[in-house]
Amino acid sequence: MRIVLIGAGNLATQLGLSLAEAGHEMAQVWSRSMESAAALADLVGGAAVTDLGQIETGADVYILAVRDAALPEIIPLLCQGREKGGVVVHTAGSVPMEIFEGLARHYGVCYPLQTFSKSRRVNFKEIPCFIEGNDDYAISELKRLCASLSDHVSYLASADRRYLHLSAVFACNFVNHCYDIASDILSAHQLPFDVLLPLIDETARKVHTLTPQAAQTGPAMRYDKQVIQAQAALLADMPQVRDLYERLSRNIHRNAIRG
Amino acid sequence: MRIVLIGAGNLATQLGLSLAEAGHEMAQVWSRSMESAAALADLVGGAAVTDLGQIETGADVYILAVRDAALPEIIPLLCQGREKGGVVVHTAGSVPMEIFEGLARHYGVCYPLQTFSKSRRVNFKEIPCFIEGNDDYAISELKRLCASLSDHVSYLASADRRYLHLSAVFACNFVNHCYDIASDILSAHQLPFDVLLPLIDETARKVHTLTPQAAQTGPAMRYDKQVIQAQAALLADMPQVRDLYERLSRNIHRNAIRG
Repeated sequence: MRIVLIGAGNLATQLGLSLAEAGHEMAQVWSRSMESAAALADLVGGAAVTDLGQIETGADVYILAVRDAALPEIIPLLCQGREKGGVVVHTAGSVPMEIFEGLARHYGVCYPLQTFSKSRRVNFKEIPCFIEGNDDYAISELKRLCASLSDHVSYLASADRRYLHLSAVFACNFVNHCYDIASDILSAHQLPFDVLLPLIDETARKVHTLTPQAAQTGPAMRYDKQVIQAQAALLADMPQVRDLYERLSRNIHRNAIRG
Repeated sequence: MRIVLIGAGNLATQLGLSLAEAGHEMAQVWSRSMESAAALADLVGGAAVTDLGQIETGADVYILAVRDAALPEIIPLLCQGREKGGVVVHTAGSVPMEIFEGLARHYGVCYPLQTFSKSRRVNFKEIPCFIEGNDDYAISELKRLCASLSDHVSYLASADRRYLHLSAVFACNFVNHCYDIASDILSAHQLPFDVLLPLIDETARKVHTLTPQAAQTGPAMRYDKQVIQAQAALLADMPQVRDLYERLSRNIHRNAIRG
């Protein structure tokens, strides 16, 4: 398929690489900065552009992979006054498909449930992709496109997708923040972060076979008050982290009683 | 070596299995309940006992693998009035070695940095073990014992071990709680937890090659206010979780600015 990629960030980079590898033709790569557009176009093919008025009308799919907050500004500029036969899609978990209403003829969403960094290649085949479309044409085109990238394509309406995105924020962004706090605590005492990797890996592996509730361990789970108080005291010079420690411990205990 | 195991919970079970596999002789397994002691003794060998007065005096190492809060009660009962030639050790991250002072002759700590559940076998070879001893004899015996179990044995004093334990609570217990919240959100909308597994795995894998700070992604990192507000609103009926969501998002944003 002939594709226009709007964006050159973490997701756009990984998506562009996987699309090119799957044999799709990259027509154009747009970014606000020519440097970013050109860097990604160099990697995945196509012309680098910074003017949304220069986006061609002949592509099969236009993929928006920009920060959510930029969509309300970019979508009208991309769609206005120029009939496009192709399907216009965004990739945002929390933005409803209806953002395209009245602006495009065929539109939809393709939400890949993964964390993307520019420097880390990901295997798109394993990434669950959740699609949605406004008509049969959009849906069938998106199915075709996503099936060429991933082995796990499902249909999911916007109302449910926002809960999926919210759960991903806990399972990824907040999890990584916990890693970050652990790293801060260790480096303050000249201990290397690497010692935690077997623990981090096992914690992730456990929930492949146990529910998170059954996998829970630690002082908060046992409600070992003395340890909890002593650990909170160690965080005296990190008040926000101490506060998180106490709230997370209370919540774990509450769930343990409930469970 | 000839070993007495005090405890029959998650850690005692995994430790006992690995000790038996490494060729050590299990002399006795103690638990408050005969049922638990007998179940573990069946698995790892040795006699099941529930009376601390019946613990033999001829073992090389006495390993306490009980909840931290039970140590101040069990240690005096285990040690009192009976000269033991062997080394008495506990396995708790947050309890200082000095808890044995005046009660045992040779004592120490062996802290395996991992999350243990009864039903999940772990590969002890990969688990970092942090040891501490009160004299050369205790240290050399603990080194010998731990080297037979793990390829990653280091010496770490109690003062630093509590920070290591604290970091592990963030990297494991709090991480798992985030998985648990994600699971609750999904199940409230009839979505299966399994869809998150590739994301959970990649989040863990990323910090093998990137620092957690460099690996951070998501709406809080970008400080996408609209998404943050909309996601907090979705948690209206889970006030404690909503509160965590807002605090974690603010902290991520603070770190992003600082970083």
